[in-house]
Amino acid sequence: MSKTPALPRQHDDFSGWYTDIVYRAELVDQSRVRGSFVRRPYGYALWENIQRDLDAMFKETGHENLYFPMLIPMSYFEREAEHVEGFAPELAVVTHAGGKELEEPYAIRPTSETLFGELYSKWVNSYRDLPLLYNQWCSVLRWELRTRPFLRTTEFLWQEGHTAHATPDEAMAETRQMIQVYARFARDFGALPVVVGEKTEGERFAGAQVTLTIEAMMRDGKALQAGTSHFMGENFARAFDITFNDENNQQAYANTTSWGFSTRFIGALIMAHGDDKGLVMPPRIAPHQVVLLPIFRADDEAAKRGVTGAMQGVADELRRLGVRVKVDDREGLSAGRKFNEWEQKGVPFRIELGPRDLEAGVVTLADRLTGDKEQVRIAEVAGGMPQRLTAFHDALFRRAEEFMAAHTFHAETFDELKEMVEHGFVYATHCGEPESERQIQELTKATVRCITFEGPSAEGTACVHTGKPSGYARKVLFAKAY
Amino acid sequence: MSKTPALPRQHDDFSGWYTDIVYRAELVDQSRVRGSFVRRPYGYALWENIQRDLDAMFKETGHENLYFPMLIPMSYFEREAEHVEGFAPELAVVTHAGGKELEEPYAIRPTSETLFGELYSKWVNSYRDLPLLYNQWCSVLRWELRTRPFLRTTEFLWQEGHTAHATPDEAMAETRQMIQVYARFARDFGALPVVVGEKTEGERFAGAQVTLTIEAMMRDGKALQAGTSHFMGENFARAFDITFNDENNQQAYANTTSWGFSTRFIGALIMAHGDDKGLVMPPRIAPHQVVLLPIFRADDEAAKRGVTGAMQGVADELRRLGVRVKVDDREGLSAGRKFNEWEQKGVPFRIELGPRDLEAGVVTLADRLTGDKEQVRIAEVAGGMPQRLTAFHDALFRRAEEFMAAHTFHAETFDELKEMVEHGFVYATHCGEPESERQIQELTKATVRCITFEGPSAEGTACVHTGKPSGYARKVLFAKAY
Repeated sequence: MSKTPALPRQHDDFSGWYTDIVYRAELVDQSRVRGSFVRRPYGYALWENIQRDLDAMFKETGHENLYFPMLIPMSYFEREAEHVEGFAPELAVVTHAGGKELEEPYAIRPTSETLFGELYSKWVNSYRDLPLLYNQWCSVLRWELRTRPFLRTTEFLWQEGHTAHATPDEAMAETRQMIQVYARFARDFGALPVVVGEKTEGERFAGAQVTLTIEAMMRDGKALQAGTSHFMGENFARAFDITFNDENNQQAYANTTSWGFSTRFIGALIMAHGDDKGLVMPPRIAPHQVVLLPIFRADDEAAKRGVTGAMQGVADELRRLGVRVKVDDREGLSAGRKFNEWEQKGVPFRIELGPRDLEAGVVTLADRLTGDKEQVRIAEVAGGMPQRLTAFHDALFRRAEEFMAAHTFHAETFDELKEMVEHGFVYATHCGEPESERQIQELTKATVRCITFEGPSAEGTACVHTGKPSGYARKVLFAKAY
Repeated sequence: MSKTPALPRQHDDFSGWYTDIVYRAELVDQSRVRGSFVRRPYGYALWENIQRDLDAMFKETGHENLYFPMLIPMSYFEREAEHVEGFAPELAVVTHAGGKELEEPYAIRPTSETLFGELYSKWVNSYRDLPLLYNQWCSVLRWELRTRPFLRTTEFLWQEGHTAHATPDEAMAETRQMIQVYARFARDFGALPVVVGEKTEGERFAGAQVTLTIEAMMRDGKALQAGTSHFMGENFARAFDITFNDENNQQAYANTTSWGFSTRFIGALIMAHGDDKGLVMPPRIAPHQVVLLPIFRADDEAAKRGVTGAMQGVADELRRLGVRVKVDDREGLSAGRKFNEWEQKGVPFRIELGPRDLEAGVVTLADRLTGDKEQVRIAEVAGGMPQRLTAFHDALFRRAEEFMAAHTFHAETFDELKEMVEHGFVYATHCGEPESERQIQELTKATVRCITFEGPSAEGTACVHTGKPSGYARKVLFAKAY
């Protein structure tokens, strides 16, 4: 048998590590469809868990799900000038259907503001019809030239929320609420600390007046934008004639928002939590929280019966406690190979039980994050698991938070900025001029990730690049980004 | 204010009734996208509930979810001769993307056997890799000329299961298992009785060797195919080279299956359970199981506080019991208009509470199926609800079953067949010749829905059309169909 080559070390080749682990851990596979990827069960289960928990947060905040067609008439994109400029180059276009050329071609949705616009115009007549608080889970297509699993793919899975409101204040409050929902989800379910802030003009969504973002730090110090929430003002309402009679019976334009969160987040989890041994799954959305390995010699039937029976008991009790369990009783694979596989796949806890353990009434419990192993009484291992999973989540979050703190810097000069962005996030004062942003990107490869909500004040400081006064109340966050 | 025209009566205009109720009940809306429909929250919630319960049944039977790309290289369809003949005329084709013409165009998936074929060929090497038991929830596109909401739409939502097995027996057992899963789901969650059977050669899925089906009866006596399960034999394995080394180290082709269940099922629920007042929702998948209407005069603040407070208590208790509740406290709408709306939307139970009821300590409880109203003590209404919902489900199923029994006939002669298919399902003996089937369809507009698993024996009987011996062990089921 040929030995599988080792996983590259993160420190030596972070990009190679990433590309390698997504296939080894069976998250995705390639097909002949350009730039799309097959989401294999282990990768898709992660998305199902994300959907379940994030969807519950949407419903708690008053949103309902619905589903719009995937095809959008090409002419719709042209109604909002910035929107068409932003998306036209990436569209996949259906020109033929049912054996004939279409009179008007359709685009496969890259995002659905325009189609929601058509229907919102129909559904909104009076102020009593507002707000509309809708969301859809679907796949979208953007023809990207360079693709990487989860990070940038032609087709990806996401949710897109679209809301319409009577006033700009209400719409802005919704925009802020939803970026905080994303931030809370990232922290509470992904164990991922994020910086929350506003995009600068050049980085806004095509057609938005305000774009809010959450930015997470990967273990190579780069940033990944993990969710965005957009305030459109009246832009789309004017383009699609979403008007209503207000309380004084005056006609007014609605204010709209949209917000999206995609399978990109899985890429963030991989690169923020993984280590040289492979993935580390955040327990609350991990496909399996605990893997159980009964260990016995294939020719020892009595040992097999005893060990698998005891393991089944542990599995049943864990399931009763709501723990997601995988029993790996595959035959023809060595225990070592199974250890290795589940370690690479990042299952938080591994429980091993062999014939001698059974006699002693204990299991070996291995923690994926610390690598620690301990003996635990069979009768106690299931009951203690919910608390251990919480502790694992907290430790994983803390580790990511400490990593981010250790790789976040403050630059006073341009030289400092240039040096520091090689190692992580950098807070610095910026004048807000788009041309200066462009030059900084050219010189440092870093961009303004956001004008932070809670970063250091910019009062009394000058732009690290132009020396002009700060364009914002707070310092901005610079980083290289995915 | 103009009065909304009445809903057509089913008996006068079943088709008009259907088209009217799907919009009135806010299940769908139209957009400018040809033959697709927007699934509004009330219609989509029904699908979400279907997904949740059906998905649990897939997982119980050992299946895992994953997700494949929506685009399929056009050449893939040509690899299986019958498959391309069946689907080529309905494909929507992407010829341009990213501003350029594509070298090879892609079809938007009408079904995904071919793309699964490519990956299964890669994933299957040894008998140890089998079976593969995978499913995906997604949307598909088939360019239909005449479309109707839920029944026939260019884009529709469904699930498609794709499995690969070492032997034809195993694959056939899977095919049978999954049609029974659909039948059980239809009965236990949709309150919908179904006939289970096999399609004749002419009605098989393009590329299948056996197609199994569940057929339900609508209230106009027509049949609706509500789910299908296909045994492919080695057809797709040969087309996509899905081979493996068996236990004797001999190379063999896998046997594959596929099975699908779509939003069409919602059309079946509407037409099997609805009445002249509108929809009747089967409680286990109803978006709302109970609607609560607090009733008070807008100018009576004290009454409003008392009534809404008491109603909130009932709602909280119902939710604790796992009941899906909608409190309709919209202002500016009369109680009569609300009654009407929820009756049309088919919510199983409606609870009304006004100031005088509150004084008397009772609510009025209305049953959507029977139309009965009764007074129930406020303190008791929530606690009794789970049992009432079960009874509602049972009564709805029984009504549909009795309707089907009353509209199922047995024909001995062709004239009887021709007359009887005007009124419902007809069991008759058929010789099995495709040409005879074609002629019967021409003369009666009815088709063979299936060779039933449990219908009357055909022993000693002759074909109603040709007089030849029966082609099957049992009589077949004829009906006009959607």
